[in-house]
Amino acid sequence: MKIYDRPGFPNPARIRIVLAQKNLDSKVTFESIDLIGAEHKQAAFLAKNPSGVLPLLELDDDTLISESTAITEYLDNLDGNPVLTGRTPKEKAIIHMMQRRAESGLIDAVGIYFHHATPGLGDDLQKYKSPEWAHRKEWGERERAKALQGMAYFDGILRDSSYVAGEQFSMADITVFAGLAFADAAGIPIAADLSALQAWRAKVAELPAVKNRSGQMFVEEDLRRMGF
Amino acid sequence: MKIYDRPGFPNPARIRIVLAQKNLDSKVTFESIDLIGAEHKQAAFLAKNPSGVLPLLELDDDTLISESTAITEYLDNLDGNPVLTGRTPKEKAIIHMMQRRAESGLIDAVGIYFHHATPGLGDDLQKYKSPEWAHRKEWGERERAKALQGMAYFDGILRDSSYVAGEQFSMADITVFAGLAFADAAGIPIAADLSALQAWRAKVAELPAVKNRSGQMFVEEDLRRMGF
Repeated sequence: MKIYDRPGFPNPARIRIVLAQKNLDSKVTFESIDLIGAEHKQAAFLAKNPSGVLPLLELDDDTLISESTAITEYLDNLDGNPVLTGRTPKEKAIIHMMQRRAESGLIDAVGIYFHHATPGLGDDLQKYKSPEWAHRKEWGERERAKALQGMAYFDGILRDSSYVAGEQFSMADITVFAGLAFADAAGIPIAADLSALQAWRAKVAELPAVKNRSGQMFVEEDLRRMGF
Repeated sequence: MKIYDRPGFPNPARIRIVLAQKNLDSKVTFESIDLIGAEHKQAAFLAKNPSGVLPLLELDDDTLISESTAITEYLDNLDGNPVLTGRTPKEKAIIHMMQRRAESGLIDAVGIYFHHATPGLGDDLQKYKSPEWAHRKEWGERERAKALQGMAYFDGILRDSSYVAGEQFSMADITVFAGLAFADAAGIPIAADLSALQAWRAKVAELPAVKNRSGQMFVEEDLRRMGF
């Protein structure tokens, strides 16, 4: 199978962690898509994924799967032991609930802030981010506030449990972890008093599937093109 | 188990269809929450679901599950035959991909339009829908446009396949179906040329789990309170 993505970006980072956790690295080839050049908004990529987002999984039978939750469901179920998405009805339910909260309350909120209230990835991509909409910056700022609320919410959860969806590491942890890395890159700091969230983050950063892999956003070449 | 919901509302309708499809109606008790009175935004309900949305599933061990996808995962997996969320890794992936598209591209978009660009459910609830935000109406209108695009997207999908996620009825169909009913109620008509979507809708409306159940939004009492 093949994954279209870009190292150092938040949603691609989620799937890279899933692959490592499931020991699937060797089963996948990667094709890098130039996000800063808006390659994912051009016809060739949109023909594969009309949503125009990364990552995208292409199976050997040419089936195309986008959306990180969907890709995770696929990869996690291949070995019949879906530890990341849940093995029992109750595990599945709690993980999917927290996954949705981690998306809408954190990683997607950070993304909207980054792409609408900041220069984002630069001019090539901004053309595809509603530049004509007069109120996009206010919308982005509102989502920044939502992301800060999301961090506080997860801090509360992590005061009472080891991981985001209970006592087991799951896809919801991966989403929160990538969301926090994205928040760093977007300039949204974790409040100092969110100590449970900070401690959980330090712990997750040391997991073998995560370590040296996804704690920092954006590869050097992309950072240079963005003017850093 | 117990479900907190309100008959005639879009996300509650999704779970009512799931229950019927899985023959679980007799296993559930319902508690009606007064959405028009904003009961779901008060402390008693927020203690159960901090997201402040319906439906909410309470298991017999007091576990609380919100988010329709998560509730569907639970209910669909109870009998070990998850026909609605997918039995194989590939089915799960495609269904979750289409589910996410049906949420962000249709039912959630209609919801944002309805609650922000129209009087929505009325004054009691509007207090909780960012009345101070000057640009909420424009945001709602943008989401209306997104919902129309979503309908066109699903029409294209349904020209080539029997159901939203392939040849089997799945939770993605339920989400699109409830999304279209919500769009009707919100005053967003399906474009006349979306004939595949219309034909699929007529077919789904006749399924035993759907028929006489969820095609129309809002019960009479609530419509009256909303001034209809």
